[in-house]
Amino acid sequence: MSFSISCEDGRARAGKLRTAHGEVETPCFLPVATKASVKTLASEEVLELGYEAIICNALVLYLKPGVEVIAEQGGLHSFMNFHRTIFTDSGGFQALRREFCPEFTGRGIAFRSPFDRSRHLFTPELCMEVQQALGSDVALTLDDCPPYGEARERYAESVARTTRWARQFKEAHSCDEQLLFAIAQGGTFADLRRESAAQLAELDFDGYGIGGLSIGEPHSVMLEMLEVSISVLPPEKPRYLMGLGSPVEVLEAIGRGVDVFDSAFPTRNARHSAVYTRHGKYSIAKAKHLKSEKPLEEGCTCYTCRNYTRAYVSHLMRAGEALGMRLVTLHNLHFMQRLMRNARRAIRSGEFTEFVKDFMRRFRKGAGE
Amino acid sequence: MSFSISCEDGRARAGKLRTAHGEVETPCFLPVATKASVKTLASEEVLELGYEAIICNALVLYLKPGVEVIAEQGGLHSFMNFHRTIFTDSGGFQALRREFCPEFTGRGIAFRSPFDRSRHLFTPELCMEVQQALGSDVALTLDDCPPYGEARERYAESVARTTRWARQFKEAHSCDEQLLFAIAQGGTFADLRRESAAQLAELDFDGYGIGGLSIGEPHSVMLEMLEVSISVLPPEKPRYLMGLGSPVEVLEAIGRGVDVFDSAFPTRNARHSAVYTRHGKYSIAKAKHLKSEKPLEEGCTCYTCRNYTRAYVSHLMRAGEALGMRLVTLHNLHFMQRLMRNARRAIRSGEFTEFVKDFMRRFRKGAGE
Repeated sequence: MSFSISCEDGRARAGKLRTAHGEVETPCFLPVATKASVKTLASEEVLELGYEAIICNALVLYLKPGVEVIAEQGGLHSFMNFHRTIFTDSGGFQALRREFCPEFTGRGIAFRSPFDRSRHLFTPELCMEVQQALGSDVALTLDDCPPYGEARERYAESVARTTRWARQFKEAHSCDEQLLFAIAQGGTFADLRRESAAQLAELDFDGYGIGGLSIGEPHSVMLEMLEVSISVLPPEKPRYLMGLGSPVEVLEAIGRGVDVFDSAFPTRNARHSAVYTRHGKYSIAKAKHLKSEKPLEEGCTCYTCRNYTRAYVSHLMRAGEALGMRLVTLHNLHFMQRLMRNARRAIRSGEFTEFVKDFMRRFRKGAGE
Repeated sequence: MSFSISCEDGRARAGKLRTAHGEVETPCFLPVATKASVKTLASEEVLELGYEAIICNALVLYLKPGVEVIAEQGGLHSFMNFHRTIFTDSGGFQALRREFCPEFTGRGIAFRSPFDRSRHLFTPELCMEVQQALGSDVALTLDDCPPYGEARERYAESVARTTRWARQFKEAHSCDEQLLFAIAQGGTFADLRRESAAQLAELDFDGYGIGGLSIGEPHSVMLEMLEVSISVLPPEKPRYLMGLGSPVEVLEAIGRGVDVFDSAFPTRNARHSAVYTRHGKYSIAKAKHLKSEKPLEEGCTCYTCRNYTRAYVSHLMRAGEALGMRLVTLHNLHFMQRLMRNARRAIRSGEFTEFVKDFMRRFRKGAGE
């Protein structure tokens, strides 16, 4: 299990992450399977789309169906019949949302389950235990990710707590097969970003998440903070920008040295009728598409585009038929996979800058249709 | 295009219906694709399950997305990418439900669209025109199907109107490629059932639906009325018992000479967690299944049973994940397809009675699990 960089083009890099369940070419995008299902898709479909890795949520699965249920079935891979790389997010981000009524205790995050209002205390040790029992290939540390717009002290506190928890998390770890990624915080303060990344770098994790970005701050600030975090993180380790998945932002971040992405964006958008194409996004639910014999995206080779017209998909979305959501999800995930493959190819051939310029021009100009 | 009976075993018969889009072995079960989608499934999946025919609803598609949308795409087969036999139900049954605020006019049924409250007049001629534009292989006549429990005069009126409409429907028909089935009514009055079937038989349709059953009347009355209708219908024509799809009732009706069935039952049940097995039905949403490594049905070869455990499907249903509904739908439709295949085989080998006895014993005794 290791990470190797085979090519660099400017700050962009192409490489391979090896886990207990195979190789993942980077830069890569992880479809989100929060509850052990990439919404609307079977695991076979995710594999057929060419995805080598997905991400589930440890906290959500701990609450429902419960970690013992999944452990009894031999872990997440068997449970969801996905035998490639599985990341598990710690759930720190979720636990701190308002619907969890979170409180910090000396030991972790106390919260109420939004499913049944039961009380829980999520500690770094429990978070580690849960992810080991789930048997994921890459575990993420429990972090303290405050919302955007708090006072500076809150982010300073978050950095200290995140480092302390990361250390405890690592000490609780006892499984050679599982890679550990820490999550760097620091809000929108460059010095705190540097401090967080430096402290975590010292703890020598297998990789580093960059958290607390794209949660409300201006785009330019996001890019600046991303650069600050990356400048301090060890260059030989994989960098994972968490929760960010618009095509434009993904390319911008690859250009700054990010290797791994995840986001519910392409799949959630799909369920709300937004179709990605190289010419931008459009809503397939608009009535005018009922007259179109074209595929969702001309020239696309995905299952949906090979088999169905815009007219049919538009009808399904307008009629509330579940198949519509699946067909658009399949297309959008195919789009993201193609984007990442093209990005890797461009890095390897030293043409990443041109590739991005070309993509941006078409994607930003286009009406999508 | 024709219907041929190759084997009879008692009153049960095995045969073939030939339509413009291929052969359909009978007795057969039609999955319901009211809005041009068998809920949760892609057309390829319906084909992979072995189904040679499905049924859509002309009235519902006339309202949404509109028949011109589907006609512009080359008809229903191209629209939904299903290039086997498609039946279209007239929608008479739907138009008379309360949410349509129906009224009989001299010419047809006036109603309001439940989608946008727009006013429509569905006549036999329009109903025919719609089904021709949809390009279905088998069109059903517009019928007057009163609810259960009305006064006798209402059913007498329904018989007269249904025959009158069937005649007009047939006269409006101008497409050689499309088979026409009339729908026999008569409520729970044997003489009216006989009258309706005899009048329609005289009009020489390609096949006959038997409507207005399984809508609230006692089971024994349903079977009696079914027998009465069948006794008057021409034996060489296919008989289609409309809207009836519980495994037990399907077998009882095959034993009385029915060739075609349709029902939203197996698919709707699936979306409500009910799993069919040869040992009865059970709810996969029960918490105890979270611990089970078994497939939904032991020995089943469907996609779901080959790839996933009860634990996983139970989790998906309890977590409200769309994939769960699809996985159970795939299983239940596989179950129905296997049931029909076994029934045909039993008829051909002269063992239908034993087959039914055997099936009933296991299915009725079992807890399903």
